[in-house]
Amino acid sequence: MNVKAYIDKIVRDAKAASRKTAIADTSIKNAALEQMALNLIDNKEILMAENEKDLRAAEENGLTSAMIDRLKLTELRIEAMAEGIKEVINLSDPVSEIIEKVVRPNGLEIQKIRVPIGVIIIIYESRPNVTADAASLCLKTGNATILRGGKESIHSNIAIYRQISSALEKVGLDKNAIQVIETVDRDAVGYLLKADEFADLVIPRGGEGLIRNVVENSTIPVIKHYKGVCHVYVDEFADPDMAREICLNSKLQRPGTCNAMETMLVHEKLAGTFLPDVCKGMSDAAVELRGCEKSCKIVPGIQLAIDEDWSTEYLEKILSIKVVSSIDDAIEHISAYGSSHSDVIITEDKTNAKKFVDEVDSAAVYVNASTRFTDGFEFGMGAEIGISTDKLHARGPMGLKELTSYKYIIHGTGQIRK
Amino acid sequence: MNVKAYIDKIVRDAKAASRKTAIADTSIKNAALEQMALNLIDNKEILMAENEKDLRAAEENGLTSAMIDRLKLTELRIEAMAEGIKEVINLSDPVSEIIEKVVRPNGLEIQKIRVPIGVIIIIYESRPNVTADAASLCLKTGNATILRGGKESIHSNIAIYRQISSALEKVGLDKNAIQVIETVDRDAVGYLLKADEFADLVIPRGGEGLIRNVVENSTIPVIKHYKGVCHVYVDEFADPDMAREICLNSKLQRPGTCNAMETMLVHEKLAGTFLPDVCKGMSDAAVELRGCEKSCKIVPGIQLAIDEDWSTEYLEKILSIKVVSSIDDAIEHISAYGSSHSDVIITEDKTNAKKFVDEVDSAAVYVNASTRFTDGFEFGMGAEIGISTDKLHARGPMGLKELTSYKYIIHGTGQIRK
Repeated sequence: MNVKAYIDKIVRDAKAASRKTAIADTSIKNAALEQMALNLIDNKEILMAENEKDLRAAEENGLTSAMIDRLKLTELRIEAMAEGIKEVINLSDPVSEIIEKVVRPNGLEIQKIRVPIGVIIIIYESRPNVTADAASLCLKTGNATILRGGKESIHSNIAIYRQISSALEKVGLDKNAIQVIETVDRDAVGYLLKADEFADLVIPRGGEGLIRNVVENSTIPVIKHYKGVCHVYVDEFADPDMAREICLNSKLQRPGTCNAMETMLVHEKLAGTFLPDVCKGMSDAAVELRGCEKSCKIVPGIQLAIDEDWSTEYLEKILSIKVVSSIDDAIEHISAYGSSHSDVIITEDKTNAKKFVDEVDSAAVYVNASTRFTDGFEFGMGAEIGISTDKLHARGPMGLKELTSYKYIIHGTGQIRK
Repeated sequence: MNVKAYIDKIVRDAKAASRKTAIADTSIKNAALEQMALNLIDNKEILMAENEKDLRAAEENGLTSAMIDRLKLTELRIEAMAEGIKEVINLSDPVSEIIEKVVRPNGLEIQKIRVPIGVIIIIYESRPNVTADAASLCLKTGNATILRGGKESIHSNIAIYRQISSALEKVGLDKNAIQVIETVDRDAVGYLLKADEFADLVIPRGGEGLIRNVVENSTIPVIKHYKGVCHVYVDEFADPDMAREICLNSKLQRPGTCNAMETMLVHEKLAGTFLPDVCKGMSDAAVELRGCEKSCKIVPGIQLAIDEDWSTEYLEKILSIKVVSSIDDAIEHISAYGSSHSDVIITEDKTNAKKFVDEVDSAAVYVNASTRFTDGFEFGMGAEIGISTDKLHARGPMGLKELTSYKYIIHGTGQIRK
């Protein structure tokens, strides 16, 4: 297979398809989604049979049981995937929305209109459900999508893709509106990332290594988040009971997610009483504690942290703890070690709350709430394609609106420039 | 000089400064702008003396008279530069604007707030006025800026920079909020473009070569436009007089700009009468005409165009002309050869107007007006840092708002995620 020629055809076909999806009626896009969900349900057996090939290969290649679990398609998971697609049908279509409108003194009527981005490339790791999730959100917003999943899930992804394609064709949409890369050749990614003439956006989803590789090699704009090193700062004016509940929730409600707390910062005035209490809660839930010297002195069970701890996204039941002597120290620590994802202050003091939200440069900055709320559904977006810690285009949770661009449409009556 | 270490210090200093400018009051930022304008006027002689060094080098290096003219700082140009800075003072500061606000069912109050982007790198060619223009717009929006101008204007840029720095210090802002790269070493650009840990955005301004180099080497997000191949399509239902005026204005009002028309598309039903008329106007203004076979047959003075013509940004008095047999042909041509910048339909037919604005995928799509209006001032933005033909973050003219990002600020009363 000539991978370069293969990718070239894929991106050209996607570009051509994007011109059609961009002007497709909401009803057609919804009909396609409906049909996609139906096809997945109707062809469960085929999907599971193809998935079985991936699972066998995964076992042969010695993947961990956690990885194998992520890869696995069960009847229930296929139904959930179909359900996810159906939920996208109910979301309102942001395309064609008039964002702004102004009439200039010369009579020109300038409208800023929401339009699809165009061609979006998604590069992701082994979860096959991303294939259906990402495709449905991108289709709803009128984009053409190119999906490149991990090699571990290649058979599953292609099987899902066949069902998607046939749904697109059935409703009369260009089947190239959603394409899956069918080769596991690594060069394919390299060619995709240089196709800036045809593609408008790359969204990498996966570990930091995958994302860095995309950023370093792409000439197409990338939206990403490397990791989530989220902080809760317990201020000297915190309500200790509220602080305790929020810290436990931020760490424990789902430790493997990017919006879980990784570092807890505690003001020294409160540390003596608060730390033993919260650490007991953490230890009871089997959280490993690593802290600064001060915190180790206060709570005997804490191990001494090393510098690397402060910038580590554990994604598991490990927490780093630091006692700080002021709110400025806390902000400084977050600025030095944080990942600009989600950071919280617990305080009853309005001045400190304002200082924290003004000065902490993160996608989501909270006063008196859990870090775990940084999520498209929790923010009321109805869906989430990912979270961005970038500052351009989209920051924080990305919903349907963040999958759109805009254009200016100007109506005149013969105006010329003087 | 160790260029790597030099750039490393520059980007770190910029990041530190950006944290201060991000929270600086509008009044302080305006005071700095006022002082910058004053300093430039008060030090005209120094600026012109330094500029003289660049001019001498330019002559020795055999730069064209057009390039030397662009480089030159006269008393009048320095005053215009100061005036430009003063105009930025009068623009309203977009930072801290509440873009959206929502209260979730669980009581969380989510605000989406406009914030500065952070650290912006501007890479540009020889016009020294960009140094002051870009710096003032970025400062007004609370960003820290790193400016890298062309080597031809190095003395002028540094001289302007000294005045800017002293203004920042005088009002108590961090002088590193605006920095100019003082070495002409080309490696400096390479190091800057990899500083994604510290910088948030690169805006290249210049020719296509410079911009491609930035896109290919940057790991920092880039906003750009390669070129402006703008079209006017004269529909079969056009008012011929209006069409003639708009075509002449689009080509001639300022041929060297990116929003000037480069290709005129004319419906075949109108071509026989319209083309001779408009071409006479063009020829009278010394425009060289290059056209398709049909247009050559209609107007004897037109040379036969080659394929390359259709994708060329002439930036001078050359026009390519094509007779098309339908609106679909016109849209297809624009899609194949255009640069997604500014495209116009002249028509009295509403259906065709709608089809054109829906299907032409450009930053600005016009009905019955000149291409020349794609401009921050003409759009009412009050300023312009450039024009984007990208689809992410900013599309079309970029004003102050486009130099901002947003963050989510969430106020709770102890909410945890269930």
